[in-house]
Amino acid sequence: MSPPPTIAQQLAAKQREISVAEFFERNRQILGFDNPSRALLTTVKEALDNAVDIGEEARILPDVLVEITKEGEDRLRVAVTDNGPGILRKEIPNVFARLLYGSRFHSNRQARGQQGIGISAAVLYANLTTARPAHIVSKVEEDEAAHVLDLFIDTQKNQPRVASEDLVLWDRPHGTRVELVIKARYQRGRQSPYEYLRGTAIVNPHARLVLVEPDGTRVTFERAAQELPALAQETLPHPYGLELGELGHLLKSTKRPTLGEFLAKDLAGVSPRAVKEVLERSALGARSDPGAVQGEAQERLLGALHQVPLVAPSADCLSPIGPLLIKRGLRNVLGDLRPDFFAPPVSRPPKVHAGFPFLVEVGLVYGGGLPADQPVQILRFANRVPLLFQQGACAITNAISNLDWRRYGLDQKGGSGLPVGPAVLLVHVASTKIPFTSEAKEAIAEDPEIDKELTLALQAAARHLRTHISRQSRRAFASEKFAIIQRILPKLAEKTSHLLDKPVPDLTPVITRIMDVVNVDTSVAATPASVGVGVEVTNYTPRARVLELFVEIPPNEFALATFDPAPDGTEAGLGRAWWTLPKLGPNARAKLALTFPPKTDLEANDLDWYVAGIDEAHVLGADPLPGDWDVRLPRTIIEAAESAAAEEAAATAEPEVDYDAAESSASPSDDE
Amino acid sequence: MSPPPTIAQQLAAKQREISVAEFFERNRQILGFDNPSRALLTTVKEALDNAVDIGEEARILPDVLVEITKEGEDRLRVAVTDNGPGILRKEIPNVFARLLYGSRFHSNRQARGQQGIGISAAVLYANLTTARPAHIVSKVEEDEAAHVLDLFIDTQKNQPRVASEDLVLWDRPHGTRVELVIKARYQRGRQSPYEYLRGTAIVNPHARLVLVEPDGTRVTFERAAQELPALAQETLPHPYGLELGELGHLLKSTKRPTLGEFLAKDLAGVSPRAVKEVLERSALGARSDPGAVQGEAQERLLGALHQVPLVAPSADCLSPIGPLLIKRGLRNVLGDLRPDFFAPPVSRPPKVHAGFPFLVEVGLVYGGGLPADQPVQILRFANRVPLLFQQGACAITNAISNLDWRRYGLDQKGGSGLPVGPAVLLVHVASTKIPFTSEAKEAIAEDPEIDKELTLALQAAARHLRTHISRQSRRAFASEKFAIIQRILPKLAEKTSHLLDKPVPDLTPVITRIMDVVNVDTSVAATPASVGVGVEVTNYTPRARVLELFVEIPPNEFALATFDPAPDGTEAGLGRAWWTLPKLGPNARAKLALTFPPKTDLEANDLDWYVAGIDEAHVLGADPLPGDWDVRLPRTIIEAAESAAAEEAAATAEPEVDYDAAESSASPSDDE
Repeated sequence: MSPPPTIAQQLAAKQREISVAEFFERNRQILGFDNPSRALLTTVKEALDNAVDIGEEARILPDVLVEITKEGEDRLRVAVTDNGPGILRKEIPNVFARLLYGSRFHSNRQARGQQGIGISAAVLYANLTTARPAHIVSKVEEDEAAHVLDLFIDTQKNQPRVASEDLVLWDRPHGTRVELVIKARYQRGRQSPYEYLRGTAIVNPHARLVLVEPDGTRVTFERAAQELPALAQETLPHPYGLELGELGHLLKSTKRPTLGEFLAKDLAGVSPRAVKEVLERSALGARSDPGAVQGEAQERLLGALHQVPLVAPSADCLSPIGPLLIKRGLRNVLGDLRPDFFAPPVSRPPKVHAGFPFLVEVGLVYGGGLPADQPVQILRFANRVPLLFQQGACAITNAISNLDWRRYGLDQKGGSGLPVGPAVLLVHVASTKIPFTSEAKEAIAEDPEIDKELTLALQAAARHLRTHISRQSRRAFASEKFAIIQRILPKLAEKTSHLLDKPVPDLTPVITRIMDVVNVDTSVAATPASVGVGVEVTNYTPRARVLELFVEIPPNEFALATFDPAPDGTEAGLGRAWWTLPKLGPNARAKLALTFPPKTDLEANDLDWYVAGIDEAHVLGADPLPGDWDVRLPRTIIEAAESAAAEEAAATAEPEVDYDAAESSASPSDDE
Repeated sequence: MSPPPTIAQQLAAKQREISVAEFFERNRQILGFDNPSRALLTTVKEALDNAVDIGEEARILPDVLVEITKEGEDRLRVAVTDNGPGILRKEIPNVFARLLYGSRFHSNRQARGQQGIGISAAVLYANLTTARPAHIVSKVEEDEAAHVLDLFIDTQKNQPRVASEDLVLWDRPHGTRVELVIKARYQRGRQSPYEYLRGTAIVNPHARLVLVEPDGTRVTFERAAQELPALAQETLPHPYGLELGELGHLLKSTKRPTLGEFLAKDLAGVSPRAVKEVLERSALGARSDPGAVQGEAQERLLGALHQVPLVAPSADCLSPIGPLLIKRGLRNVLGDLRPDFFAPPVSRPPKVHAGFPFLVEVGLVYGGGLPADQPVQILRFANRVPLLFQQGACAITNAISNLDWRRYGLDQKGGSGLPVGPAVLLVHVASTKIPFTSEAKEAIAEDPEIDKELTLALQAAARHLRTHISRQSRRAFASEKFAIIQRILPKLAEKTSHLLDKPVPDLTPVITRIMDVVNVDTSVAATPASVGVGVEVTNYTPRARVLELFVEIPPNEFALATFDPAPDGTEAGLGRAWWTLPKLGPNARAKLALTFPPKTDLEANDLDWYVAGIDEAHVLGADPLPGDWDVRLPRTIIEAAESAAAEEAAATAEPEVDYDAAESSASPSDDE
């Protein structure tokens, strides 16, 4: 008789391997299948993201049909059909019914799906909750017929099980249809499939998306752009943020015969000069065998790679949303609410986190009909995919909460947390690898590099906001002053003149002396024939002015503009034009007109106006010529500004003659 | 020459399997290794949780040493040594260097670790960031020597690789030591290893934990309890919340020959009567082969299991923290801040989510030195493990934010979001399976059943808070009134009497008429010899009263109490005692004393006092006999209360004689 097992033996007997499918079957909340309504959204999301990804890869403008129909009390049938290239028969089972299997995990370029989990997770959820197989139809162009497969996942092995198979004729040249029956609940509004499709359509205007809701409602998001976005290119791993273990894998698996070639050709950003410097610093030979660089030497190599200045990652592995679509995205959620202010969208240059290139974009709108007493609304996107859940766990939300928005004109209790005010923020993070907090891909994890870029981008947007708010309040103050002066002064003058039985004097000198400001007033008028921008520059100062007016227009729109009068100079590549205005006496006005083709996507504040020839304190509606601003000005304007400033200084030093004359001829305020 | 590959073929060529280790190496943020300081905490957490789990399973009081030492500029060595039973040589590589391998995933009882990922994830992180192996020492009692292994994870295969191996003598009878060199940063304060050990010690007082910090500081959390908590028992899956797929797995893998036996013996909560009803409803025979119950029949069976009333899950698979430790946990974070109020800890009965039993506990303290202008502090625990990260993503936080705390006396903007006020909330969820939002196990995912229980538990605690706040304000109001009356009335009477040259009258009838309240004053005095509770009941009403006094004490403490005078009745199991007080005339007072052994863990408000024989509006410092309260009262008291109420009603109808007499003899307020 053998002795009874010891405690260590008893415990050992319980040790077992856990299949990844078993693990996720039990932890389906990690994949985004917490509850019936979220499960529906996750299913739609995984299928739709795949359809848009495959379209981009195969260079086919995506046309995706999402059909949701009722299948029983708490069951829905979700069918997503795309016009992609189709999937080869032998790959179908693995693609749809095996977790951790896919084409994008090992590639290094921006894509929506990267994990090889998503759609198989939805199949797992369908198998689990309704015991129904995934029904897949797929046809490649070369084949006559489409393959039809019913698939289960064998969770204990994480392997596909084909329940049935057939060939059918399909009325599409190529494409894939995935059909799942799941335990789910349909809802409208926030976090709904509609919301997800809308968000996807906004930042993917090259896709045509159709949603059929359970009640038969059919919503079509038409294609707004006929061109596919540039295909994000595969890139090499960038040494910044690379860990020792990752460098070890690369050194071990490279096919380059020498370390020098490995550095130059297997890594991104390492120039020939940098290769030399890295090798020197790490005291390694260019001809060493990469696989032999281990232990201590490997650490020295990584240290050198982190110290030597490298070229920043190329942007062509990334696919930003871009200023135009950021504005469209914001306008879309605004509906009928007309904000006062669209901040120029911010796009940061690519940086690296953990070896992966990424970039951050931010859009901001403010004011108008937006609610002033609620936290700002946040629209989060990652790799052109809207993030609808887990806002509280996301690095984007954290970066917003950690900024002191009180400095930029929004309310914020204690200077942290979500700011309160009439604003919407759109934030997009694009990367060859987004660090999500979980497999459900709904929140971005904290990363110091990403956080830094988020903060810089948010600050840039916030500075625009601050400028707008302070301009707004200056303008409000000035127009109040204006109104009072123009209402009261003439009456006062009339009454006094009447009492003294004298003619009513010319009030211009008085008004200009009190106002003492040059006002630049911009208005945009869109007609079916054109989009016109009118500018009026009025000299409400008591002396004559020679002013230089300067405008900055987004370069795309600039190319379409015609100017009246013609500018004295332009810099079309930067979207800049400038004029020397005719000398304006007190109360005199100059006008300019810009005309754009009809339907040009332009807001009044897309145009930035600058004025030279006058001190900052005396300009309203335009900015003074920038000091610390990052705007390169043509020499003529800078000279004009300098001479104007000198003239101004001289004028302030000794008062002008006609200035005193104006004062002595009529000074009603003395009589008051 | 073969034709060029089609697009579908090109895409197919890229499809590859992804190893789970590769996946997590690239997505280490999902495992809690986002950045160097969080990586340290996660490493400590995984090793410590294992050590405490193994102690409980092997019935050994855990003694765990956590040593953190500096190993280079951004590197730390973490060594965790336990006194557990040790691990057999053949299991060591898999336990420490293979993801998704473990003993607790397939078991169905409460444990800290359940995923088979944790400690291997820390090893993966060490391999990745410092290219160093995990150094494991383990000895089982039967062996002379300890096994020492250096382990790497082969990420492409998710398999352990033994780099070196040895046998050494070790000065411990049994135990395990895991030593990792990781890229990490040590920090003190919030989210630090110290914080984690402290949190763990509080709710696991049977463990002795020692922390050695990088600067050599040694902190010992001594064992506060000499008994292991009851071992949570394995339980069977409960049909509530079970999905079709899960039922299918169970039916397929059962060894029971008939469906009847399967229902009775493989599922929890199905009584023989329920078996019969389930079979009837689903129109299935008791003798059917379980494996043959498929498709439609399986759906009917699940439907019946969800409809037929079943026995709630047994609590013995769960290990709650309990009221005593909840209070200790709260007291611990309070430090020197003395709150006014400890709400009686709330513990909900076990419920089921997705087939897994769970329960919710809540503790709350309020007032005193806690900051009144900040959001309430939240202490989250899951299966006796403190949760330090991802508060914003946690179902606990959501449940707190979704409750309208304004109704319970805390500030809250718009009635949602974190409430503001001087309060600390401790919330514990215990389950055989906690649905975490990610593998890092730092936040609990949304689940309707868990959310419901969280809300009910929070509401119960909040009701205690509301009662306290309203009592506090009533008491404040009454004592102000008292102070004014007792200061002014005698002076007024004295002055008036002096003016009229008459003797100062007895003010009792006047004072009692103005106060018109019975005051119950409780005080706790702890001496080295005993903890005494004194109660004074004073009749500040103008008529004689026969009152019943009733006290509720936590049953554990009740057993220790001696009473003076002896109560007229007790219900020891519920911790209740009651007295009929001698008839009290106006201004008369009765005293009671309760004595507990020295060091009894008792706060003044652990005792709940109720008074019968008088209307609610006329009692201060105690509650009236409950109407909607969930307190079952002995019949005698209910009868006394009813007759008192009737008497009161009669008295109110016709004013008492001496009441009027008192008024006519001296009524200073009329003179004012």
